Amino acid sequence: MSKYKVAVVMGSESDMPIMQKAAEILQFFGVEHGMTVSSAHRSPTYLLRWIKEMEASGVCVFIAGAGGAAHLAGVIAAHTTKPVIGVPITSKLLGLDSLLSTVQMPKGVPVATVAVDGAANAAVLAVQILAVADSDLKTKLVEYKESMAKEVESKSKGIKNK
Amino acid sequence: MSKYKVAVVMGSESDMPIMQKAAEILQFFGVEHGMTVSSAHRSPTYLLRWIKEMEASGVCVFIAGAGGAAHLAGVIAAHTTKPVIGVPITSKLLGLDSLLSTVQMPKGVPVATVAVDGAANAAVLAVQILAVADSDLKTKLVEYKESMAKEVESKSKGIKNK
Amino acid sequence: MSKYKVAVVMGSESDMPIMQKAAEILQFFGVEHGMTVSSAHRSPTYLLRWIKEMEASGVCVFIAGAGGAAHLAGVIAAHTTKPVIGVPITSKLLGLDSLLSTVQMPKGVPVATVAVDGAANAAVLAVQILAVADSDLKTKLVEYKESMAKEVESKSKGIKNK
Amino acid sequence: MSKYKVAVVMGSESDMPIMQKAAEILQFFGVEHGMTVSSAHRSPTYLLRWIKEMEASGVCVFIAGAGGAAHLAGVIAAHTTKPVIGVPITSKLLGLDSLLSTVQMPKGVPVATVAVDGAANAAVLAVQILAVADSDLKTKLVEYKESMAKEVESKSKGIKNK
Amino acid sequence: MSKYKVAVVMGSESDMPIMQKAAEILQFFGVEHGMTVSSAHRSPTYLLRWIKEMEASGVCVFIAGAGGAAHLAGVIAAHTTKPVIGVPITSKLLGLDSLLSTVQMPKGVPVATVAVDGAANAAVLAVQILAVADSDLKTKLVEYKESMAKEVESKSKGIKNK
Amino acid sequence: MSKYKVAVVMGSESDMPIMQKAAEILQFFGVEHGMTVSSAHRSPTYLLRWIKEMEASGVCVFIAGAGGAAHLAGVIAAHTTKPVIGVPITSKLLGLDSLLSTVQMPKGVPVATVAVDGAANAAVLAVQILAVADSDLKTKLVEYKESMAKEVESKSKGIKNK
Amino acid sequence: MSKYKVAVVMGSESDMPIMQKAAEILQFFGVEHGMTVSSAHRSPTYLLRWIKEMEASGVCVFIAGAGGAAHLAGVIAAHTTKPVIGVPITSKLLGLDSLLSTVQMPKGVPVATVAVDGAANAAVLAVQILAVADSDLKTKLVEYKESMAKEVESKSKGIKNK
Amino acid sequence: MSKYKVAVVMGSESDMPIMQKAAEILQFFGVEHGMTVSSAHRSPTYLLRWIKEMEASGVCVFIAGAGGAAHLAGVIAAHTTKPVIGVPITSKLLGLDSLLSTVQMPKGVPVATVAVDGAANAAVLAVQILAVADSDLKTKLVEYKESMAKEVESKSKGIKNK
Repeated sequence: MSKYKVAVVMGSESDMPIMQKAAEILQFFGVEHGMTVSSAHRSPTYLLRWIKEMEASGVCVFIAGAGGAAHLAGVIAAHTTKPVIGVPITSKLLGLDSLLSTVQMPKGVPVATVAVDGAANAAVLAVQILAVADSDLKTKLVEYKESMAKEVESKSKGIKNK
Repeated sequence: MSKYKVAVVMGSESDMPIMQKAAEILQFFGVEHGMTVSSAHRSPTYLLRWIKEMEASGVCVFIAGAGGAAHLAGVIAAHTTKPVIGVPITSKLLGLDSLLSTVQMPKGVPVATVAVDGAANAAVLAVQILAVADSDLKTKLVEYKESMAKEVESKSKGIKNK
Repeated sequence: MSKYKVAVVMGSESDMPIMQKAAEILQFFGVEHGMTVSSAHRSPTYLLRWIKEMEASGVCVFIAGAGGAAHLAGVIAAHTTKPVIGVPITSKLLGLDSLLSTVQMPKGVPVATVAVDGAANAAVLAVQILAVADSDLKTKLVEYKESMAKEVESKSKGIKNK
Repeated sequence: MSKYKVAVVMGSESDMPIMQKAAEILQFFGVEHGMTVSSAHRSPTYLLRWIKEMEASGVCVFIAGAGGAAHLAGVIAAHTTKPVIGVPITSKLLGLDSLLSTVQMPKGVPVATVAVDGAANAAVLAVQILAVADSDLKTKLVEYKESMAKEVESKSKGIKNK
Repeated sequence: MSKYKVAVVMGSESDMPIMQKAAEILQFFGVEHGMTVSSAHRSPTYLLRWIKEMEASGVCVFIAGAGGAAHLAGVIAAHTTKPVIGVPITSKLLGLDSLLSTVQMPKGVPVATVAVDGAANAAVLAVQILAVADSDLKTKLVEYKESMAKEVESKSKGIKNK
Repeated sequence: MSKYKVAVVMGSESDMPIMQKAAEILQFFGVEHGMTVSSAHRSPTYLLRWIKEMEASGVCVFIAGAGGAAHLAGVIAAHTTKPVIGVPITSKLLGLDSLLSTVQMPKGVPVATVAVDGAANAAVLAVQILAVADSDLKTKLVEYKESMAKEVESKSKGIKNK
Repeated sequence: MSKYKVAVVMGSESDMPIMQKAAEILQFFGVEHGMTVSSAHRSPTYLLRWIKEMEASGVCVFIAGAGGAAHLAGVIAAHTTKPVIGVPITSKLLGLDSLLSTVQMPKGVPVATVAVDGAANAAVLAVQILAVADSDLKTKLVEYKESMAKEVESKSKGIKNK
Repeated sequence: MSKYKVAVVMGSESDMPIMQKAAEILQFFGVEHGMTVSSAHRSPTYLLRWIKEMEASGVCVFIAGAGGAAHLAGVIAAHTTKPVIGVPITSKLLGLDSLLSTVQMPKGVPVATVAVDGAANAAVLAVQILAVADSDLKTKLVEYKESMAKEVESKSKGIKNK
């Protein structure tokens, strides 16, 4: 049985170039994670089985990326009490449909929605959630934040010299 | 076991004033139908059970009304091969979220979407679908269409006299 | 006289690359279908003649794809009591105009709307409608659904190994 | 046979409070006009008969007001070469659907669209069109424009004194 | 002094590829027309001078194409009682800003708005307006409409044979 | 001749309840200002005369509030080199048309746009502009900012006690 | 020093009726929480002080509700590595501005966004986050989910009997 | 200590191609300006330090360009009483999110918003603000306006000759 902290799922193989960025961030923070493709609409039974599997294996946070009528995160949230992070994927309608389908959940069943194509931020949010009870991750997040600030500041100097 | 031709479901009791109009049309056409409340997010297990029950009882068409991140019709479509008609219900965002969540389904899993709050039309569409193989309903639909046209024409005369 | 079960029409020759996908699905399911170009605005008389012809030939379902002020499906729905499926085609406004023009029909005259550019799903829906009274199609739809689920599941395995 | 210069039609009796304003402007300018209710979707045959009747009677301009999937102006434009003015009527989606359904017409079949609920302006535009070949109307339009400007100017004085 | 029937203006030289289509249609119908560039915002004085010049020369209809905060048609409509046709030009916001800026005019000052980038239709509408009092143009419009219908019908046959 | 620092104009008398808030802020800061009604579309000549009058009288900043196809601020910006602040007024389309018509100005002719119905902020911005060269106003703005912060902080305490 | 697990903040006192629902849910789950009013724009210094205070007191999750250009959640996320949940509050633009301002955060600084006015769900999400390392809360969440499902199911029975 | 009149900041290095146009206009008018990169979210402390530095150095106007949940201009406006000009940068959602995040500021804290990607206009507006108390700039602005008008007029002649 797996030992994932974070379970990442996307609605279609074509979402991989975007959802890959979640995996990269999780790897950077050293967080064990699994990644799969499963569709709320095309493989619903497999999806439910996978959710149960993940629950049983002790997963702490779900990340789900989907486009269009993006129900993936919502379906997971319906079947778990773990935090579910939704990534709306760009679509023919710019991802506006994906965003609204992901975020506008009814009372009692939240999906923590990040920006359109914001898979990296979904992973950062997952790390922040795990860090609530993990002081090592807490330290890493503070360092990550500081290095971001430094990176911006150094770019700023480059521009001043132009 | 029930003998419904059409199974109507809404995501929340508060959708009743709108979904009621579907029942009225089905009654008008003499089509046996059941009506229930079940949420894709708040009662997902009960929803799946209900879908199977309806399938087993020989239901021919599903009608699902929901607002916001409206996944109800999509979840049903994921679990049946029967035609599923989606009614996007008005929301804080005017039903734009409900509409996009209902209509933008991925390849292989269509939801036959009608207008925002268009429950009456969902029922007319269900009757049209049943009428493909039911000549009595076919006749009733032709009469219904003719009476609509006459009603408009008679209103038109009233206005001309103003 | 033709013996089509499904009549497919598009508003402009330029919609062909999209509407083609409807034909492919219908062919896959072995459903007899005709395909034509006719505009609600540029060839309205020809359109009405074609609708009558199709009706006379015993067609069971209409599929209409159009973009912009997409009236094609609505005009057909006004002249038939058969189920009419509308495919909003991508436009300069992303297909938002096409979607709203197709789906927001008045009481009594529904158009079963699918996703923007969702021609394949229009065909799946047409097959679902025919399957209400055709057990062979019913069986094929179940197989189609199962093969979709398997395809997703097998892709999922590929990703896990990455 | 009637002797209308302008033919006004609305898709539903409920559009009357708005379309009434077109009639008032036409009356103000002394332009003969008829007014009717006819739906592109619910009474299509009656609509086509009415269009022909109006054409035969020598009508010069059409004004059509409709909401939702507002096809009324477009259908008229498909069947006449007279200028057709479209009034998008407010809807559950604020009239955005009505506006896009009315204005986004394909090449060759224009609808002269005015603002959402802009029935008064539809009538002013009709008068402007008739005035191209009617010097009396031309004079009245110039006076109308001047009185509008004076009205604004006088209101402006009222405010300055506050 | 010019003898234009229709005066075409665009807000920027970059609108030429689109507005060109208006000129082509006017040429096809043999309607004398002038074409210029003038901005409501960058050359307002020149614009007002041009409007007066056109008025003096007996122009019958204005066509104005502009994008973004598209005030061009509205400014002309403020200074003339002739029919003004507005063409919203595609923008960074898809032309939604151009469309709303053009169509949502206040009572008393209509702009006859056509589709986003619908310059050809602006010209057809101008011809329809002129045809109210010009039986030659009326005949040409009927022929134009018939040839459109025939063109669609012949394309339809091509597809049937595929 | 007037001695206004800020000239406030609205497109219609009905905009008064909103534009009033600009006057209140200007009064609070002791900034001389005039207020008028003038429409870019219904009284364009009067508007141009008023702009010139204001320019001649030494006005420093313009504030213009308008709804729908809101050209008022843009027309003023076309005729002055003074800063022009635009207030988009709520409309049938929620003020989205007003906002886009006001803000999407072409290169060279900016309109400093504030929030929908943000007349108070238009006035604060005008004061900030005048304060660039007026140290009294600078001091008042700092005090205004501090009192805002204090007000929020005191409300915060009230809530904590609940 | 406080001992809050969750810190709730709203941009304006007027957001209280909505944000109250977050407090109710937190109380239901027995989660210690504080509530305050502080504006990213009107009281930025006080806000930063409050964030530091909350951080120092060991708060685990932030919930921030704001409308319009809703920067509140984003500013907090910029200054903490704790999970920040954003509640977009309904506005003149239906909360679309609030939603986009809250959710579209740049890489590295996520805001976990819930539905427009979804304060209750923000609290449920906060509880889900705390439950990752708190088995009592985990149990309560499972019970909460079950009672939701039962409530829907019992409503469903009521409707069947109608 | 710097002697900038205008301080330009962008949220990300990738905004440079757009914000560059502000620098070009400021250079054209001979206005001293500084340019930097600083993010409201990724380098908030550095941003606050920079704002104070600019304030201390006597900067008169801020220009801030950012995309997505564009808080940059708003954060600056929260910390200064100087005029702050916001440039919404194009995003995955066409800049609609950037526009609304920038313009919809609460009472008391205005951001002078220009068009999406309107960096050049942000600079023109800054010059207009400085010109309130600088007669040299006033003269240059008048010349700039006249040359714009001439440029349009000359282009117009080119077209007439076509």
